[in-house]
Amino acid sequence: MGKRIEGGVTAPKGFEAAAAAAKIKYQDRTDMAMIFSRVPCVCAGTFTTNVVKAACVKWDQKVVSSGIAARAIVANSGIANACTGAEGFAYCKDTADAAAQSLGIPADSVLIGSTGVIGKQLPMDRVRAGVKMLAEKKGADIEKGTEAAKAIMTTDTCEKQIAVQFQAGEKTVTIGGMAKGSGMIHPNMCTMLSFITTDAAITKEALQKALSEDVKDTYNMISVDGDTSTNDTVLVLANGMAENEEITVDSNSYPAFQEALHEVNEYLAKKIAGDGEGATALLEVKVVHADTKENAKRLAKSVACSSLTKTAIAGHDANWGRILCAMGYSGAGFDPEKVDLYFSSEAGDIQITENGTATNYSEDTATKILSCPEIRMVADVKMGEAEATAWGCDLTHDYIRINADYRS
Amino acid sequence: MGKRIEGGVTAPKGFEAAAAAAKIKYQDRTDMAMIFSRVPCVCAGTFTTNVVKAACVKWDQKVVSSGIAARAIVANSGIANACTGAEGFAYCKDTADAAAQSLGIPADSVLIGSTGVIGKQLPMDRVRAGVKMLAEKKGADIEKGTEAAKAIMTTDTCEKQIAVQFQAGEKTVTIGGMAKGSGMIHPNMCTMLSFITTDAAITKEALQKALSEDVKDTYNMISVDGDTSTNDTVLVLANGMAENEEITVDSNSYPAFQEALHEVNEYLAKKIAGDGEGATALLEVKVVHADTKENAKRLAKSVACSSLTKTAIAGHDANWGRILCAMGYSGAGFDPEKVDLYFSSEAGDIQITENGTATNYSEDTATKILSCPEIRMVADVKMGEAEATAWGCDLTHDYIRINADYRS
Repeated sequence: MGKRIEGGVTAPKGFEAAAAAAKIKYQDRTDMAMIFSRVPCVCAGTFTTNVVKAACVKWDQKVVSSGIAARAIVANSGIANACTGAEGFAYCKDTADAAAQSLGIPADSVLIGSTGVIGKQLPMDRVRAGVKMLAEKKGADIEKGTEAAKAIMTTDTCEKQIAVQFQAGEKTVTIGGMAKGSGMIHPNMCTMLSFITTDAAITKEALQKALSEDVKDTYNMISVDGDTSTNDTVLVLANGMAENEEITVDSNSYPAFQEALHEVNEYLAKKIAGDGEGATALLEVKVVHADTKENAKRLAKSVACSSLTKTAIAGHDANWGRILCAMGYSGAGFDPEKVDLYFSSEAGDIQITENGTATNYSEDTATKILSCPEIRMVADVKMGEAEATAWGCDLTHDYIRINADYRS
Repeated sequence: MGKRIEGGVTAPKGFEAAAAAAKIKYQDRTDMAMIFSRVPCVCAGTFTTNVVKAACVKWDQKVVSSGIAARAIVANSGIANACTGAEGFAYCKDTADAAAQSLGIPADSVLIGSTGVIGKQLPMDRVRAGVKMLAEKKGADIEKGTEAAKAIMTTDTCEKQIAVQFQAGEKTVTIGGMAKGSGMIHPNMCTMLSFITTDAAITKEALQKALSEDVKDTYNMISVDGDTSTNDTVLVLANGMAENEEITVDSNSYPAFQEALHEVNEYLAKKIAGDGEGATALLEVKVVHADTKENAKRLAKSVACSSLTKTAIAGHDANWGRILCAMGYSGAGFDPEKVDLYFSSEAGDIQITENGTATNYSEDTATKILSCPEIRMVADVKMGEAEATAWGCDLTHDYIRINADYRS
């Protein structure tokens, strides 16, 4: 485990951040964020696998694959810039140009993130004015990072940020991150906006490898509603200002970097799941003793995604049959008549099934356990040594309320 | 098209039905149904692909594959007899034995269907008493079929039945059916309980082929909540009493049988989708000009299953970006920048996108169209000649209400 410190994206050396109220859609809050590095960064990214990709995703994929050093991320909430055609892509270039001019950096070193309504064009005058404000207001304080994390929220109820430190030789390296989630959350190879900064000196290859491997166990294992977004983006900027010996895939420090990055990603992913639209509880589903890692993941994710499991949690109801049912249609093979199922939370723990049928558990105790804000389910399928964890949330009236009139 | 006539499972010659209040779970309504044929039947079935299969599914699979002539179906609502181990399977045999004794037929000619809570054992004294009542009350009236269709309902708001006739040579053949759906509806190769009777003389091979092919375009194309049940069962009993020349796969009458069966299945499947838990609207999603049938199905089903599309419909909100997003993560390839999207209902029709971006449509008109009880979406992907239709429903507060405390 890395050492947890205060703050988020501005915790690593040399990173600044800012938020601005550009009135893109929201009228009474900040809706643009900037992350800026004082020196050029190695960058890595993972993006939505949705065939329908937002213009900003296409822009970022170009920047990340070009190998050009990155300097800044500009993000907005309110409008997703997806399904906006050539006009929408041109707006990415306009945004990068505006940032380049204000910050005195190349336009192709600017990454862009958008989240919000699909199909609407960005009001570019406001975006350009917002970029200018961001460039003027940016700073390295912890508060600036928090402000940026707040500005990218849509239906999120709280900002999501974290900072972690580890030792690379004699140098202290810091990783900071911020994310937003809430709805249209069912990441596939990556997630809704998550921006991570680090002052590590690391090769692009090592950075991308560490990120690509870790998203499979973190962002890709959460689901709020089964809908894979058009805008899912995870970006990591590494500016080298910790002055550690450059980390490569073969370095002694690589595992420590991996571990610290994992801590950041898992923390943000769980925050996204627990703050799903309308959610009142974070649901952790762990499958143990599966035959393969792939099957363990399928089983865990199928339960975390099941509407019926999620509504049962909303009702604090130990309707465990729905859990076995969701495992059953996951596509992974197992023997239902061997499954042991356990529930736990701060209110206690309980065994619900033994070999696929109900134990003599107390419904009262089960209801108490399922009434807590963090609920854990463990399914032992007794086949092998593989395990996996997925995270979801309950499905409540508020999910419907939020989404039945999201645009109005 | 076949000729639609009044009634359901008792419309074909030689079939009787009954309902009884056995107090298995519900205390104030009927909860057991019987379908009985006066003469032995050829039977066909399709069943859930869920690894977790209810005891009655395993029982029916044995009966259908044995090739033994079927005589009766006994079904109950309230308890699903799933995740009930060897005890649950023994109860299927007990139920069949009770029916065999009351009806004077072999136990292995009795098919069984259950729907309701998973994980609870059936109260067998009540089930046996119920079987006896059913055998005494059964009759060939149309009303008896309607009563049976009502008895298998759980959270359904109305019974679902249909009867269709066609000519096979000089003989009139009738097909009748009844179904129940509502929640845990995301059939894979078959659906929640659907029982179909026909007086057609038909070979087992032709009957199974016609059924197996047709479920792919009917029950398998509906979804209420993405949860594939442990109990999905479609059974067809054919007793030959229409005295038509026996239909084989190569008969001139086979296409007419297929068509009439399709009409029954599609009608029942749409009824199940439109009566999804908490639903206020039936959503029909048609994808045209796809490259392959498989991709057309994937695209249509992905939209019909999307929580965000479904909540938008609940809010009568033309949030079309969610539809393109759902197509994008379906797994089927297409060019988002070529998609034309249309909405229609009894209130009118409207083109929403042209080549992937918004037309200048009126939000007011769109809202009016989306406020009707039957809504149709057509997505033209301009790739080839394949098309497919899927059916779903809106996702409302009532889905949450019904499922958050289903067991209480």
